[in-house]
Amino acid sequence: MRLGLAEVEGGVAVLVRVSEDEAAVVEGIASLDAVFLGERSIVDLRAAAETALAGGRRIPLAEVAWLPPVRRPGKVLCVALNNSANPDRIMSGPDTPAMFVKPASSLIGSGRPIRLRQPMGRVHPEPELAVVIGTGGSDIPVDSAYDHVFGYTIINDLTSPTMRDTDTFHYRAIHPDPEAEDGIRYVDSWVSYPARYKGSDTFGPLGPWVATTDEITDPHSLRITCTHDGGLVTDDNTANLRFSVAEVVSFASEYLTLEPGDVIAMGTALKKSAKGGAVQNVDLNRLGGVIEVAIEGIGTLSNPVEWR
Amino acid sequence: MRLGLAEVEGGVAVLVRVSEDEAAVVEGIASLDAVFLGERSIVDLRAAAETALAGGRRIPLAEVAWLPPVRRPGKVLCVALNNSANPDRIMSGPDTPAMFVKPASSLIGSGRPIRLRQPMGRVHPEPELAVVIGTGGSDIPVDSAYDHVFGYTIINDLTSPTMRDTDTFHYRAIHPDPEAEDGIRYVDSWVSYPARYKGSDTFGPLGPWVATTDEITDPHSLRITCTHDGGLVTDDNTANLRFSVAEVVSFASEYLTLEPGDVIAMGTALKKSAKGGAVQNVDLNRLGGVIEVAIEGIGTLSNPVEWR
Repeated sequence: MRLGLAEVEGGVAVLVRVSEDEAAVVEGIASLDAVFLGERSIVDLRAAAETALAGGRRIPLAEVAWLPPVRRPGKVLCVALNNSANPDRIMSGPDTPAMFVKPASSLIGSGRPIRLRQPMGRVHPEPELAVVIGTGGSDIPVDSAYDHVFGYTIINDLTSPTMRDTDTFHYRAIHPDPEAEDGIRYVDSWVSYPARYKGSDTFGPLGPWVATTDEITDPHSLRITCTHDGGLVTDDNTANLRFSVAEVVSFASEYLTLEPGDVIAMGTALKKSAKGGAVQNVDLNRLGGVIEVAIEGIGTLSNPVEWR
Repeated sequence: MRLGLAEVEGGVAVLVRVSEDEAAVVEGIASLDAVFLGERSIVDLRAAAETALAGGRRIPLAEVAWLPPVRRPGKVLCVALNNSANPDRIMSGPDTPAMFVKPASSLIGSGRPIRLRQPMGRVHPEPELAVVIGTGGSDIPVDSAYDHVFGYTIINDLTSPTMRDTDTFHYRAIHPDPEAEDGIRYVDSWVSYPARYKGSDTFGPLGPWVATTDEITDPHSLRITCTHDGGLVTDDNTANLRFSVAEVVSFASEYLTLEPGDVIAMGTALKKSAKGGAVQNVDLNRLGGVIEVAIEGIGTLSNPVEWR
């Protein structure tokens, strides 16, 4: 099934997808967050969604005011440069997934505006598959990683290369040196800090649906497209991810305990489109317009740009 | 008043500091998180704490099993390289606060073990003043920033330079170039991703107390010390912070909406001690032992290292 969250008649409701045009209201479950925090069980959620599918109140999708399906995840963990399409771009880097954290305050639902300001500089989309954790854990083996996945959604991991450049230090890091008089030596280093360039408000469009694992039997065979004002920007496939969902879940959980409701953004589909475009060319802060990310079997995440 | 959170008789209780040796149990308030999520008001919390101070049940501090005072903040926003003691280390960098996000899953209470493994490499302490937001907001003016502060606590922003080096890419970033045939050009870039090196489990000792703003009239005149197994590592003062609490709260809120319960780590006290040491010299993964951060008027955050 595919589950979402929306504002309905002044309140918040969990929705289950009925068809391309219609959802049903899931009664008795306040939110997916409530389920992930343990206030209700996933079994309760599924039962309530089945009841809604069988005869619950219908809402036309055209009228839905979406919220992020998970509103306040413990963390949104994002994998960087996880695409096998462009290995020649990397001169040196880790042979394990490199990750950063996007704050929950950056998340918005489908249809909600991406709100930009001129000081943010260039802002481009990053169309990504996102994993929603259902069962937490640490040191999760690759073999059982999928047991921890609740479902899959879409994230547009908006990025400002301008703010990335600003928030980068070239500095002399202090390293221990037993030979030195004061016990330290300086090492020329570059370090960049992503809170603003990845985590500003509205930089995390998420949703609209979470497709549960029974709907997505293979998360690595999904077409993923990104369009800007209807024009194709990228057309890729999750088969091109360098590290798989199982590898990322397992590796991440060796260091950061995964909790129910955590979202893991799998990294950008970066393959160039037939038209020679690249996501980095779509400067939303200059162009405005509507940016959409569609993943086969999940849905379409669509957000307009507005300036504030 | 100074407030904390602890495990008490199998449950969780809010505590208020009575003396150097004793706390009182605050009845009727489940946690500070509950207050920040709006389930109870700050006025209710203060009233309950006053009642506890007047005649509530006493607990010897020596027996307290601390938890982080805020267990699941919306975000832990950390300011990088915010110390005026070492400006000569920075060859280039922003003239505004650079920030990253530490996940809530990294937080531990005072007294809890910092759990390290050999693959983490070097791990050193970073003694820091942390701000706890009481009233959320966006675009907060510098002049009214302190109205948004609930109180001050201590964070040990544990850092692994080894994982920082591993999770750094030297790569060719894609920049738009209208002159180029395919509309892009490549720019030699360095970018580092902090989820592991700043956000691994137990890398965020926090607490034990949150001193409310009525106790800390000036957050920029507090002595801050770091000791390892009783030996002084650094002895600094929050007067040496480059950007002030008000400047950081204001600047951050222009980009990331601040929410009640958000924690802002203000950056490391880095001044060398009289003995010539530096926090970077204290490799906890090699040395083990007990690392303590003390801030005048707040308390002492103490954590032992264990290997897992």
